[in-house]
Amino acid sequence: MKPEISLNNISIVLVNTKTPGNVGAVARCMMNMGLSRLVLVRPPLDRNNEAMKLAAGAEEIILKAPQFETLKEAVTDHGLVLGTSRHTSRHRRNIHTPRQMAEQALPLLSSNKVAVVFGREVNGLDNEDIALCHELISIPASDAFPSLNLSHAVMVVAYELFTAAQAKLQPSERVLAPAEELENFFEHLQKTLEDIGFIDKSHPGHMMFSLRQTFGRARLDSRDVSILRGILSQIERTAGSGA
Amino acid sequence: MKPEISLNNISIVLVNTKTPGNVGAVARCMMNMGLSRLVLVRPPLDRNNEAMKLAAGAEEIILKAPQFETLKEAVTDHGLVLGTSRHTSRHRRNIHTPRQMAEQALPLLSSNKVAVVFGREVNGLDNEDIALCHELISIPASDAFPSLNLSHAVMVVAYELFTAAQAKLQPSERVLAPAEELENFFEHLQKTLEDIGFIDKSHPGHMMFSLRQTFGRARLDSRDVSILRGILSQIERTAGSGA
Repeated sequence: MKPEISLNNISIVLVNTKTPGNVGAVARCMMNMGLSRLVLVRPPLDRNNEAMKLAAGAEEIILKAPQFETLKEAVTDHGLVLGTSRHTSRHRRNIHTPRQMAEQALPLLSSNKVAVVFGREVNGLDNEDIALCHELISIPASDAFPSLNLSHAVMVVAYELFTAAQAKLQPSERVLAPAEELENFFEHLQKTLEDIGFIDKSHPGHMMFSLRQTFGRARLDSRDVSILRGILSQIERTAGSGA
Repeated sequence: MKPEISLNNISIVLVNTKTPGNVGAVARCMMNMGLSRLVLVRPPLDRNNEAMKLAAGAEEIILKAPQFETLKEAVTDHGLVLGTSRHTSRHRRNIHTPRQMAEQALPLLSSNKVAVVFGREVNGLDNEDIALCHELISIPASDAFPSLNLSHAVMVVAYELFTAAQAKLQPSERVLAPAEELENFFEHLQKTLEDIGFIDKSHPGHMMFSLRQTFGRARLDSRDVSILRGILSQIERTAGSGA
């Protein structure tokens, strides 16, 4: 029984974390739960080595964590990108609990890298970064005091993944389209919808956000993307050509 | 929907905690998860008010926490006392996971006070205190690095209690598009793809099968369907119209 093996394809991605100590606390709870791959996007300066102190034995996870300037670069080779959000708004229908997420993500890990993305302590992920996420997770919390410490939020997600990995391992052979391919598809989709006048070039945001969620849920593989882009190309050829 | 109400009968008991900051972090995650009753047995001196700093809004829980010299006094009026232990040994048969514990404890809360007891950071509960516990909980963790931060351990237990309390009260939010609506969408999709020459009218089968799977996985709701059909209508208007 080696559930940890499959969890190696999980990346915990911290975006623009404010407090170095939180990076350390996250590394510790990741290692507690058999996760090993931490990814840092614009991490904080850590003059006093706070991260190492709070890692309390999980220093290795920090030392080998790759760093990126943007979330887009950080997740480019990931088949599934899950964002964490504490707010539910009209833009954010279809938010999963950590438990639902773990059940869905786990079978994909045998053939795909899966990223779980956590935003800055107070503000969370900004809209640009949320748009890069295929689906969203929200941790259940009391309405009266919903603001979790960053490492506590990671703990809950990591705990659900570890628990799900222990419960059963049913690998899926499905290889999802990497995020880069998906982003190219979304660009193509947006361009086509602008060309046929379905969305306004100056305000593509809201509609594209909805469509990103719809296609995010579809767990597209490369063949799906290729078919959908084939349709887009055909729409572009047909539009205005009198087909 | 007030799952918090029943959780008022849960006491989180910290025995001989070493670091004041951990008391604060525990208070915060308790409040996040709708727990309100913290009980301190021989708490640490806190000259620098570290507990209040880390409570980050949950100070009230610390201020009203009763303090005791012994665990026995602290839990005397509790119907069920659950100890947390990270080690399984021959003395500790019958150890529950936090999830099992939550499922078992929750129904009792309407008529009983239930204590969950956490020992000192490094050593955990000593044998005398363990003997006072009616049952034991162990948090699943990686064999390679099982030592959880105290507030992370409380977080997992509190999260399971909160989740279990919500489970009974949570209606299913997302309403998927009924099959009839979905079939109408697929008909519309097929007609549009035929019109723009993407699929052959005489052999739509294979391609439509792929697209049905793609959109099937997306678990569309009525709003999604409406957006997608809007796109199809726009494609039809545009095709051949010189847009």
